[in-house]
Amino acid sequence: MDLVQIGREAKAAARHLARLSRAEKDAALLALADALMAHQDAILAANAADLEAARAAGTNAALLDRMLLTPARLAAIAADTRSVADLPDPVGEIFDSAELPNGLRLHKRRTPIGVIGVIYEARPNVTVDIAALCLKAGSAAILRGGSDIRQSVAAITSAMSSALSQCGLPAAAVQSLTDPDRELVRGLLRLDQYVDMIIPRGGGGLHRFCLENSTIPVITGGIGVCHIFADASADLERAVPLIFNAKVQRPSVCNALDTLLVQREVAADLLPRVAAALCPAGVELRCDAESLAILAAAPGAESWKVVPATPDDFGTEFMALILSIRVVDGLDMALDHIAAYGTHSDAILTSDAAAADRFVREVDSAAVFVNASTRFNDGGQFGLGAEVAVSTQKLHARGPMGLKELTTYKWVALGDYSVRA
Amino acid sequence: MDLVQIGREAKAAARHLARLSRAEKDAALLALADALMAHQDAILAANAADLEAARAAGTNAALLDRMLLTPARLAAIAADTRSVADLPDPVGEIFDSAELPNGLRLHKRRTPIGVIGVIYEARPNVTVDIAALCLKAGSAAILRGGSDIRQSVAAITSAMSSALSQCGLPAAAVQSLTDPDRELVRGLLRLDQYVDMIIPRGGGGLHRFCLENSTIPVITGGIGVCHIFADASADLERAVPLIFNAKVQRPSVCNALDTLLVQREVAADLLPRVAAALCPAGVELRCDAESLAILAAAPGAESWKVVPATPDDFGTEFMALILSIRVVDGLDMALDHIAAYGTHSDAILTSDAAAADRFVREVDSAAVFVNASTRFNDGGQFGLGAEVAVSTQKLHARGPMGLKELTTYKWVALGDYSVRA
Repeated sequence: MDLVQIGREAKAAARHLARLSRAEKDAALLALADALMAHQDAILAANAADLEAARAAGTNAALLDRMLLTPARLAAIAADTRSVADLPDPVGEIFDSAELPNGLRLHKRRTPIGVIGVIYEARPNVTVDIAALCLKAGSAAILRGGSDIRQSVAAITSAMSSALSQCGLPAAAVQSLTDPDRELVRGLLRLDQYVDMIIPRGGGGLHRFCLENSTIPVITGGIGVCHIFADASADLERAVPLIFNAKVQRPSVCNALDTLLVQREVAADLLPRVAAALCPAGVELRCDAESLAILAAAPGAESWKVVPATPDDFGTEFMALILSIRVVDGLDMALDHIAAYGTHSDAILTSDAAAADRFVREVDSAAVFVNASTRFNDGGQFGLGAEVAVSTQKLHARGPMGLKELTTYKWVALGDYSVRA
Repeated sequence: MDLVQIGREAKAAARHLARLSRAEKDAALLALADALMAHQDAILAANAADLEAARAAGTNAALLDRMLLTPARLAAIAADTRSVADLPDPVGEIFDSAELPNGLRLHKRRTPIGVIGVIYEARPNVTVDIAALCLKAGSAAILRGGSDIRQSVAAITSAMSSALSQCGLPAAAVQSLTDPDRELVRGLLRLDQYVDMIIPRGGGGLHRFCLENSTIPVITGGIGVCHIFADASADLERAVPLIFNAKVQRPSVCNALDTLLVQREVAADLLPRVAAALCPAGVELRCDAESLAILAAAPGAESWKVVPATPDDFGTEFMALILSIRVVDGLDMALDHIAAYGTHSDAILTSDAAAADRFVREVDSAAVFVNASTRFNDGGQFGLGAEVAVSTQKLHARGPMGLKELTTYKWVALGDYSVRA
């Protein structure tokens, strides 16, 4: 595969996409959804071949399930694509209008990013999700899925290309790098002449690889250590189901709780209730000395999995039914702890308005919660309609990224043959 | 110099700065300006030593002038610092408030970036300019000036540190890497554990070096090929002084005109007027075959410097009194030309509203002008009050970056012990 050719065609396609009306883009999205259904047999056959190869290579059951497409899953992906058509089009929005003393009429105009490179792992659905969002936001996409779903990606991309061509759009609006050559990834990351943004969708290793090797801006995210701090004024009765929700509802995602900080005054009251709720759901508690002593002495302790925390248990994203617990003196110590490890989603449980206000001001994470579960840090929950990624870096966009965060802007200045004095 | 130590201290200082009120930051800015004056002798002596070394090394006069500090220049730098205190504080602004169906009250809160690394060349004033803007925006700065102004930077930084300490702020809020070891630059670019953003201030080589070597997001900018397209409906009388302004007012800056595109119908009328105005100011015209033929036959041509353009003359930022000229069929050909080479500032001169509208929609550059000089692409001219850089990349900020563009945001969600369904 000739990356320069791919980049050049993507850039030309992006120029085309940038000029489309909302109606034209929405029609293409519906055609894309229809094409997935029309090509269902080919896509499922390709997916079956990927799975067979993965099974033969000894891939574990969880990964195999992530790779698997079924008629129902494909229908759900098509439905998601149709729902992107219902979202408002961010492109063309005019904002920050001003009349300047120099006589210029100035505004900003929201524009597509251009060409977006996406590197992801063994989730075939990402191929469609990202292509649909990029299309709606007026950008061309160059996709690189994990090599274990190569045949699925090729079949899906082929279906999408035929839909784009039917609608009179350039097929290069969505291209996939399906050649197994791993150097292609490195090459994509250096294609800065054509590609404007890289979105990695995967684990920490993938993000690090992109940061190390890319000359294109990289949106890092989807990784983070999430904290809840229960202060002495928290409603302990209501705190327990919230902590349960944050840890147990979906432990494998980035907004799941990793560390519970408890103010000393309420530790002996709160922690046994937390253990009694979470441990029966299979949660292992990794405790500092103080919380360990409290839990070891609590009634019911014999049935809980409670172990001493090592220093590494603080600042670790578990992605599993594991929770680290630390007793703190108060807000200052909680803020210090979160300053050391937090970046993603951090919450305070409190009835003290001043404490809530300080927490909100001082915690420097993508999302800060007061009396709410960290699980809300999500594009759908935050009303964005769709989510491209959850950014934990500070530039461009932070937290959930929707369609608007897939755009940029240009300045437009209207004059009357105006010259600078 | 221990970069990890510097990074760690900068991050701790950033946490301190993020909590300051506007009044505290403004007081520090005034103290900083006063300190520059109080340390004037030491700063000028250090600058004289830098200049002497540079002179001995055969540095050219233009560069020596850029390096030079005088009492008047230092006073102007101090005045600029005071004027940053007058600008509104972007930190803490609340925006995008919403009540969500899930019961959360959501908003975004503008926050400092954190730690900003700035790499610049032989301009001692940048040391203060950037430190002042970072301070006002609540971020710590790690500065690396060109090695030829090392002693000036050290003296300025020492003055600023003493002012910060006087105000009770951490001296690590502004640190400079004055050790001549060039590996420090490479090290700074990989200090992603502590540094959130890199701003290069210099030529294309520096920007490229940062892109190639940084694991931290880099704001690239300050470089660009600027175009003016005069269509057949343009007011030719008024077009000439505008083109003169764009090319001649300050040819060495990034928003100066590089290429003039003229629609064929008016080329024979407009181009001789352009030559008659620009050539006496010392401008060399590099012309495609068609414009060359027109100008060669024009009265007065013998006194103009008009030469055939090579392909490289299109897509080149001249930074000098050189203008390339191309005759085009019309708007489509102008848009194709600008799509190939434009990124920074591009203008149309026209009386045709439909052409202006298409130009504004389709030109994908940081700033697009209608009947206005490209020279307006500037933070001061656009009403930002101060300018950190002019970004030509598409992420985070595009075009002039002021204080607001030196910030990020966090999401804040207030609930009532809310859990995700």
